Amino acid sequence: MGTTQLETVPEPKYWHLKNVIGEALDSEFSIGEILPNERDLAARFGVARATLRQALEQLELEGRLQRRRGVGTTVAPPRMGVAVGSPRQNWPGNDDDWRTVDCMQTLAPVAVARLLDQDPARTVHLVRRSRVSGGQPVAAELLYVTESAVPELSGIDAPAGPARARAVLRELHRLDLEGEDRSVELASARADDAKELDRLPGAPVLLVTTRYFAQGRTAAVSMATYRADTCRLTFGDTGDVEIHHGAERQAQAS
Amino acid sequence: MGTTQLETVPEPKYWHLKNVIGEALDSEFSIGEILPNERDLAARFGVARATLRQALEQLELEGRLQRRRGVGTTVAPPRMGVAVGSPRQNWPGNDDDWRTVDCMQTLAPVAVARLLDQDPARTVHLVRRSRVSGGQPVAAELLYVTESAVPELSGIDAPAGPARARAVLRELHRLDLEGEDRSVELASARADDAKELDRLPGAPVLLVTTRYFAQGRTAAVSMATYRADTCRLTFGDTGDVEIHHGAERQAQAS
Repeated sequence: MGTTQLETVPEPKYWHLKNVIGEALDSEFSIGEILPNERDLAARFGVARATLRQALEQLELEGRLQRRRGVGTTVAPPRMGVAVGSPRQNWPGNDDDWRTVDCMQTLAPVAVARLLDQDPARTVHLVRRSRVSGGQPVAAELLYVTESAVPELSGIDAPAGPARARAVLRELHRLDLEGEDRSVELASARADDAKELDRLPGAPVLLVTTRYFAQGRTAAVSMATYRADTCRLTFGDTGDVEIHHGAERQAQAS
Repeated sequence: MGTTQLETVPEPKYWHLKNVIGEALDSEFSIGEILPNERDLAARFGVARATLRQALEQLELEGRLQRRRGVGTTVAPPRMGVAVGSPRQNWPGNDDDWRTVDCMQTLAPVAVARLLDQDPARTVHLVRRSRVSGGQPVAAELLYVTESAVPELSGIDAPAGPARARAVLRELHRLDLEGEDRSVELASARADDAKELDRLPGAPVLLVTTRYFAQGRTAAVSMATYRADTCRLTFGDTGDVEIHHGAERQAQAS
């Protein structure tokens, strides 16, 4: 979007450096290639290590670079479009991308209990799922289902585990879904989500909170943590929005 | 969400510190209060400055802390819910929250031209808008409108500026909106957007890309940059999703 500067703003050094490195990535590097180490890069661009690090952090935020333990800093592929919302409302679980990990009865965090509009002292079914796209882990979800939404579940044998999780989802799907709403915000990965997403705890993630309504009440709340480095969340009925830095980069290079 | 650890994962030092400081914020500080300086905090928690800084960065990512130039680090208020998508599709501009800043004829970036499905050598109308919520700037938008979508515009006198922008929007609204799709991803603020949002260039932002369809084609593309520190983007028909760390914090404290 460099062609549409409507107004000139003084740029900090790391920002200028970020743009310079970004151009070097376009012209000299290919996707997956490992960058030279920080000392060599700082020398090449004639900047302090601290400035270099700030610029690299920017490029990581933008999804241009990936830092991986034991590998180093590599040129990132374009972000994946991952469908999150659609005008057709769906119960969670109607999707082959999600893998059911576990299920347990537990207390919901106070804020989740409030979303569920129930007493925090009442237990809920907590279904834990993970989402894989293009062979990579992209999201970890905690799905809280009220016990009153799935009363028939007491007849199921398995007390926990994936079988129990599938039973909870199956019972949930019997209800008429009356509506859903959703929010997206920046967050940092909790330790167990980070592990599942192959990131360090605290890595930037997009937290998608969804409320599902049935029988005039909130039946379930999903807290899904998406990798912010590799994912672009898509909404809407006409398929994927095809914009990403990668495409822009390739188009400008060609 | 600390009550639902299904699995124990070793936590890095900064992550543990982040949780400890988070609890201190709940119990000892109020919203808007300025934190002690880094040296004093590091001494109090018995950690190295580098570890402290990592923990503070985490808390900033989560919207718990704000760093402001000339002020220091303060305890952040809960994030604002900002409505982005609704099942009722709307042309851009049907919203009092947006202020029209400027309008010009220009070339669109290559990636935007591709989204508009038109030759990058053809000019577009670029409407620049900003969004204010609760008295604070929350978003800066670049709205690209194809010339073919608003052919009658040639009769308007003003060649640029807010009056021109309003004329472009008025002509656009005459079309039947056939659909829209949207994506959300993490990005870093461009220098001019950062200025408008009162942030430093490179600050984490949520980039919302929306395509608007009319007459069987893409009529307009919006690239809207939302502050990731203060905003929670909301989608859906049942109003705001009321979850945020602030609410959780207050509920746990009570």
